[in-house]
Amino acid sequence: MKFDEAYSGNVFIKSHPSFEESEAVIYGMPMDWTVSYRPGSRFGPARIREVSIGLEEYSLYLDRELEEVKYYDAGDIPLPFGNPQKSIEMIEEFVDQVLAADKFPLGMGGEHLVSWPVMKAMYKKYPDLAIIHMDAHTDLRDHYEGEPLSHSTPIKKVCELIGPTNVYSFGIRSGMKEEFQWAKEVGMHISPFEVLEPLKEVLPKLAGRPVYVTIDIDVLDPAHAPGTGTVDAGGITSRELLASIHAIAKSDIKVVGCDLVEVAPIYDNSEQTVNTASKLIREMILGWVQKK
Amino acid sequence: MKFDEAYSGNVFIKSHPSFEESEAVIYGMPMDWTVSYRPGSRFGPARIREVSIGLEEYSLYLDRELEEVKYYDAGDIPLPFGNPQKSIEMIEEFVDQVLAADKFPLGMGGEHLVSWPVMKAMYKKYPDLAIIHMDAHTDLRDHYEGEPLSHSTPIKKVCELIGPTNVYSFGIRSGMKEEFQWAKEVGMHISPFEVLEPLKEVLPKLAGRPVYVTIDIDVLDPAHAPGTGTVDAGGITSRELLASIHAIAKSDIKVVGCDLVEVAPIYDNSEQTVNTASKLIREMILGWVQKK
Amino acid sequence: MKFDEAYSGNVFIKSHPSFEESEAVIYGMPMDWTVSYRPGSRFGPARIREVSIGLEEYSLYLDRELEEVKYYDAGDIPLPFGNPQKSIEMIEEFVDQVLAADKFPLGMGGEHLVSWPVMKAMYKKYPDLAIIHMDAHTDLRDHYEGEPLSHSTPIKKVCELIGPTNVYSFGIRSGMKEEFQWAKEVGMHISPFEVLEPLKEVLPKLAGRPVYVTIDIDVLDPAHAPGTGTVDAGGITSRELLASIHAIAKSDIKVVGCDLVEVAPIYDNSEQTVNTASKLIREMILGWVQKK
Amino acid sequence: MKFDEAYSGNVFIKSHPSFEESEAVIYGMPMDWTVSYRPGSRFGPARIREVSIGLEEYSLYLDRELEEVKYYDAGDIPLPFGNPQKSIEMIEEFVDQVLAADKFPLGMGGEHLVSWPVMKAMYKKYPDLAIIHMDAHTDLRDHYEGEPLSHSTPIKKVCELIGPTNVYSFGIRSGMKEEFQWAKEVGMHISPFEVLEPLKEVLPKLAGRPVYVTIDIDVLDPAHAPGTGTVDAGGITSRELLASIHAIAKSDIKVVGCDLVEVAPIYDNSEQTVNTASKLIREMILGWVQKK
Amino acid sequence: MKFDEAYSGNVFIKSHPSFEESEAVIYGMPMDWTVSYRPGSRFGPARIREVSIGLEEYSLYLDRELEEVKYYDAGDIPLPFGNPQKSIEMIEEFVDQVLAADKFPLGMGGEHLVSWPVMKAMYKKYPDLAIIHMDAHTDLRDHYEGEPLSHSTPIKKVCELIGPTNVYSFGIRSGMKEEFQWAKEVGMHISPFEVLEPLKEVLPKLAGRPVYVTIDIDVLDPAHAPGTGTVDAGGITSRELLASIHAIAKSDIKVVGCDLVEVAPIYDNSEQTVNTASKLIREMILGWVQKK
Amino acid sequence: MKFDEAYSGNVFIKSHPSFEESEAVIYGMPMDWTVSYRPGSRFGPARIREVSIGLEEYSLYLDRELEEVKYYDAGDIPLPFGNPQKSIEMIEEFVDQVLAADKFPLGMGGEHLVSWPVMKAMYKKYPDLAIIHMDAHTDLRDHYEGEPLSHSTPIKKVCELIGPTNVYSFGIRSGMKEEFQWAKEVGMHISPFEVLEPLKEVLPKLAGRPVYVTIDIDVLDPAHAPGTGTVDAGGITSRELLASIHAIAKSDIKVVGCDLVEVAPIYDNSEQTVNTASKLIREMILGWVQKK
Ligand SMILES: [Mn+2]
Ligand SMILES: [Mn+2]
Ligand SMILES: [Mn+2]
Ligand SMILES: [Mn+2]
Ligand SMILES: [Mn+2]
Ligand SMILES: [Mn+2]
Ligand SMILES: [Mn+2]
Ligand SMILES: [Mn+2]
Ligand SMILES: [Mn+2]
Ligand SMILES: [Mn+2]
Ligand SMILES: [Mn+2]
Ligand SMILES: [Mn+2]
Repeated sequence: MKFDEAYSGNVFIKSHPSFEESEAVIYGMPMDWTVSYRPGSRFGPARIREVSIGLEEYSLYLDRELEEVKYYDAGDIPLPFGNPQKSIEMIEEFVDQVLAADKFPLGMGGEHLVSWPVMKAMYKKYPDLAIIHMDAHTDLRDHYEGEPLSHSTPIKKVCELIGPTNVYSFGIRSGMKEEFQWAKEVGMHISPFEVLEPLKEVLPKLAGRPVYVTIDIDVLDPAHAPGTGTVDAGGITSRELLASIHAIAKSDIKVVGCDLVEVAPIYDNSEQTVNTASKLIREMILGWVQKK
Repeated sequence: MKFDEAYSGNVFIKSHPSFEESEAVIYGMPMDWTVSYRPGSRFGPARIREVSIGLEEYSLYLDRELEEVKYYDAGDIPLPFGNPQKSIEMIEEFVDQVLAADKFPLGMGGEHLVSWPVMKAMYKKYPDLAIIHMDAHTDLRDHYEGEPLSHSTPIKKVCELIGPTNVYSFGIRSGMKEEFQWAKEVGMHISPFEVLEPLKEVLPKLAGRPVYVTIDIDVLDPAHAPGTGTVDAGGITSRELLASIHAIAKSDIKVVGCDLVEVAPIYDNSEQTVNTASKLIREMILGWVQKK
Repeated sequence: MKFDEAYSGNVFIKSHPSFEESEAVIYGMPMDWTVSYRPGSRFGPARIREVSIGLEEYSLYLDRELEEVKYYDAGDIPLPFGNPQKSIEMIEEFVDQVLAADKFPLGMGGEHLVSWPVMKAMYKKYPDLAIIHMDAHTDLRDHYEGEPLSHSTPIKKVCELIGPTNVYSFGIRSGMKEEFQWAKEVGMHISPFEVLEPLKEVLPKLAGRPVYVTIDIDVLDPAHAPGTGTVDAGGITSRELLASIHAIAKSDIKVVGCDLVEVAPIYDNSEQTVNTASKLIREMILGWVQKK
Repeated sequence: MKFDEAYSGNVFIKSHPSFEESEAVIYGMPMDWTVSYRPGSRFGPARIREVSIGLEEYSLYLDRELEEVKYYDAGDIPLPFGNPQKSIEMIEEFVDQVLAADKFPLGMGGEHLVSWPVMKAMYKKYPDLAIIHMDAHTDLRDHYEGEPLSHSTPIKKVCELIGPTNVYSFGIRSGMKEEFQWAKEVGMHISPFEVLEPLKEVLPKLAGRPVYVTIDIDVLDPAHAPGTGTVDAGGITSRELLASIHAIAKSDIKVVGCDLVEVAPIYDNSEQTVNTASKLIREMILGWVQKK
Repeated sequence: MKFDEAYSGNVFIKSHPSFEESEAVIYGMPMDWTVSYRPGSRFGPARIREVSIGLEEYSLYLDRELEEVKYYDAGDIPLPFGNPQKSIEMIEEFVDQVLAADKFPLGMGGEHLVSWPVMKAMYKKYPDLAIIHMDAHTDLRDHYEGEPLSHSTPIKKVCELIGPTNVYSFGIRSGMKEEFQWAKEVGMHISPFEVLEPLKEVLPKLAGRPVYVTIDIDVLDPAHAPGTGTVDAGGITSRELLASIHAIAKSDIKVVGCDLVEVAPIYDNSEQTVNTASKLIREMILGWVQKK
Repeated sequence: MKFDEAYSGNVFIKSHPSFEESEAVIYGMPMDWTVSYRPGSRFGPARIREVSIGLEEYSLYLDRELEEVKYYDAGDIPLPFGNPQKSIEMIEEFVDQVLAADKFPLGMGGEHLVSWPVMKAMYKKYPDLAIIHMDAHTDLRDHYEGEPLSHSTPIKKVCELIGPTNVYSFGIRSGMKEEFQWAKEVGMHISPFEVLEPLKEVLPKLAGRPVYVTIDIDVLDPAHAPGTGTVDAGGITSRELLASIHAIAKSDIKVVGCDLVEVAPIYDNSEQTVNTASKLIREMILGWVQKK
């Protein structure tokens, strides 16, 4: 007496009912309490799942179908409202479990701070970890007006954890002067404005390494992703982002986990951004999960 | 590895995980293909569930909590797009099963035509059935521009099935002249404009009888329910509708099933209507389920 | 090879194709260039027509059908953008023609300044004219920041033209202190906050007189008419406004023309206001046209 | 006593008042009852006409003005809600009449299924017909969850009618694996992702042949056309679509009819899509009508 | 070279330029990080100021003009994103300063938690303080899913600080069963559903006492205030809320400060709620400031 | 007792508090009364300031920070509603004062007609003035349906004032045939469709000359700027517009003033356009102010 959950919009389309049998785990991190501008990304994961039923199950780009990969959708982690510290602890603990079960974690934000505990967990398992980061923003602050737990700090934190030379940012078009100077001084990679072309140059250097990919949807131009907290003109097209996902899929790196963050449905008037996010996740599943 | 479904927004808040153990069954009928004006109610059930997590579990009106009733949320019936005939067959078959298991059916629309197969199924089980119908519209047409399967016909159909004197409409403010004339001629009850006061007069007459209650959200004034296909000024307040639900709860009728239809989220810009619908359903559960 | 225009949404539903044979003329005055707050009412008339196809042709309130009245929809007067002086001249000239043909003028705004030239034209034909004005605002300014052609001045202008004791305002809840003082001094009637009850008291005094009725949609509470330039809390319900229209219909005054103004679709997110406006116009047609 | 209809927004701007004297006929097909995702395209034709008054009458691209072509706007065919079978019969019958009068049919949808009866009518007149199809989707299904009358089937139907080698699809980025395989097997042309460049290669092959062009607005990227039922990231720009229209205009094919479908205003929050659609139609009129 | 700030929308209309010369201080508390449902109230204060320029400066209800009261608009307190503890400390410190200067504090939220530090500061100055609280919700939780700093806790906190018998809640229609039980046990006043009538009974009991009034905009029905985080059907009208403000103004209590919270512009599609909030604040200024 | 105005959203971010000490003056021209299609740009300047607080103060494009330039934000000129003649006189007078104080004027519209009085003022100071104009539209009409004061006329007016060979238009894709013919005949420069490449060719020719740059936001494609009165498909990306601003910054022309007009927030559903406009203005400040 229950209709097929795989097409209900309650889980990402075609999700597998068994955690144990799955290769990957999709999960939501519905947190937006530290954002400095427009909140609302807490509702991102639920809406991405909801519209995923409009997706075709086949990718013409990768010539693969969703039934070729088994993934389980665990739902949204019930994070405590207004408590960033406890929230990131819960996220880290959850991802630890996913990794302990040897599954591929695919997270949906929520604000970008949620990627910090995920990357911490990844690093515990993969000491040789590298990060590919696509974003309009550096996210290299030490704190935002005094707050170290801020959506503008996760990349700085991971640089300090795994070493800045292991972190590669693409599509960056905004940040403080100091952030760019710091990145230059410590040898962290930042490709301004562009994603696809510089990514193609970086990928061979990372061949064979375990890589976590974190995508802030605002790397897209506002024309392609109005539904996010901090829109920033001059970004890339969804076509370039799709091609970048495919470039990673065809490279020799080992993708060991990934996330897509900062989707804020309340600013997404025609549901354009959540539909695009759901297509991106399909391509991430089809292109990355079995590359581990 | 799955977070508590009862608070996920995937089911109506606090839904019980077991069909067998439940007294009532909630189900969605995501159909809007015959509407003559604005479509979109197919997305009503999913959004009502989604926002139900914002509800308190306690009703100050009825001094009851949701945990006092066990109800199962079966999800949305996967109706075939653009095929009204097959859709109503599937709905009838589903409700037959619910009734066979002796559960209370609580349906969410979808356009009002979905109530027709439900009422047919109810009548098979309850030959003494009466209908309470709250709506801005008569819904007494034989057909709409030639189409007998139309959201403007379900009340006419049920009148013909169970006899017009067993059907009681409230809050009606729009219809064709012929519809009102027909109702008068055949002795069907129509209370124009008002719901609560005439309902209080009718309820004693129905004492002890099995009654199915069908609520078209557009019985509310557009100020209270903008998110519906056919807004019609001059309606009642949500306060009056809540009080009407409570009047039924405190009456001596036996409510044997109910529905809430015509919630169309795309026209519900601030999510006002879906939030109101979800509160109405909480009150219907707490007030009506155990009255059978 | 043209589908029935009466149900096309291009004219008010059921409009008669012949000007000559009609008793009344509907026309739009798409002007919003002097509004001090939010523009957009230029698109009001077109949208009211468009949604009028969703109306029932029968009024349960008045037990009449639209086919009992012949009215012609002339479309929108092509007013020159940004030129209030020329605009009001064109409106006056148009209404002069309507009146010369002995038709009942039913205008749709546009900002409230459009009523000024209409009332001027009416007065030329009906020297004994009285005005019934429903509005949240006094509209009794001499000028707005120096501009005498402003949406906040039409009632002052008509008071000066026909004498303030012939002007009756209802539902007023906002204005300058000086406006209320002036009204009091010169004996103009203002009913604050309420419409229906004070109207019932005034109507007998106007028995037999020719009356022009001008309705600013913002007399409704913002809950009932969000789609207007200047929303003002504490207003009346659409139910009270409908009842007021009906009270006039049942009174002994001679309605010789009317308008409904300040409908601004861009602020009308769920099309609630334009749908309400279209129902109001149906009632004005059915209740007032043949009272001349 | 009627203002110039050509600039009223009731017809496409500058439409000619006489069917007989016109070379082309514009008509709306307001049907959306079989769509599997978001309905609402029934309101597309009316809104495209409404905003067409904001267009310049001159095309800088083609150096032509609208007055150089005579076209008649017949309005919207009054299709029966929820009845796809009868709807497509009415459409075919209407287009038969247009073709019998030797006019160029220019249709506006409505969902893509409306193109099927049009193409059927075209084929009766032009046995050598070829189809140019621009879309994000293959539309090559036999049925959608059991329904053969679905917006995802029209291209399959026309392939079967006129032979798949006479059908050329461009811009396709979504579909089932089986659809692409079928196309390959039967020799139907599909250009994935791109429109302009592959079109330039195909056009010479079609020189001299009668061609019907059907454009699904979702061939545009969601950034360029959010107002449609099924947005799909990774599409083309409006610039590329305009250039594609111009490439056809400058080619040696004989365009014998065309349509633009799937414009859904309710998802078009800033009216961007309807404005773009209206510009596209201007270019289709100026570039294609006299190429017959 | 600066245009008159009093009419700029940057301050509440007609604000006085001098803090020292003013009787009252308006300030914003742009915090929404602990809300459990829909965030966005951080933008409430700025939007209320912005639309305040559309207000008349005269109140017909109170027959007073804004120039009769001197009030200074201090702007928004720059609260640290995502840090509730530090935020409430900053608010308390700010209000301490306002009170030290013997000014009347009029705060704008932001989520309801912001009222907690304000009430703490008030109590330090007024040991005999009573609280009038208008809200749909009890706000009597000890914590929300473990978080004591939550928008659902401020009334519980102030009850514990000043004693529950000094706190009067009105209009309450939602809460946990335990909250209502606790209120009953400790003798705290809760008027369910209604505001005006029970308030009129309470006011004489508070005659002569210093009272802080905290208004959660969601005490209004969603029809009257869609732009808030937690809409809850069955609320009061803006007319009743205006009358309640006036009842307090005409009573013998000493209003020593007040706030209006939970206005969330992103859900306020037609700017209805912010316009209503700005009118409410005008009435609070005119009715309450000089009652100290 | 006032929080830092530079980050309040009341002025453009980081504005300097002193007119005298500043190099540039930002000012709003909130006028939209002559627009022929969709009004609403009167609210553009206020919203651009409001969202400017979301900007980074550093430009990665120009490697400069806002603190390197001193600019004063004078607020919005209080223009008289519905009176274009008086409005343009007030604008000219204001800019005269700015120029008399030897400041760089940076104006925000409002409709494009506001640029006309600014350019008049500029020409009085700079007899050798040239104009760079970026727009979708020619704006070369003599009048719009009889009105010489129209948003479609400012470029014609300035051509007549300073000579058409001194005016350079870029990105133009719409206009009347006569406008293009006139431009050609009199030797005015129009680059159709493109901005960046033709601009690079023109800039060397203008080396050393004083140039006023006027940008109509609708030069952007609707995908990049939905929030404007007259969206027109086929435009440039925000990336191309940013690059064009930077090309001017790096050229040898002397920019002596500039404006950005036609931003209409009511059509800007996700605040995409105002955020883009605010970024453009940051680049104009950093790139152009000290080039005088
Ligand atoms: Mn980020
Ligand atoms: Mn970012
Ligand atoms: Mn109904
Ligand atoms: Mn109904
Ligand atoms: Mn008025
Ligand atoms: Mn008014
Ligand atoms: Mn298609
Ligand atoms: Mn398609
Ligand atoms: Mn509260
Ligand atoms: Mn509350
Ligand atoms: Mn322009
Ligand atoms: Mn332009």
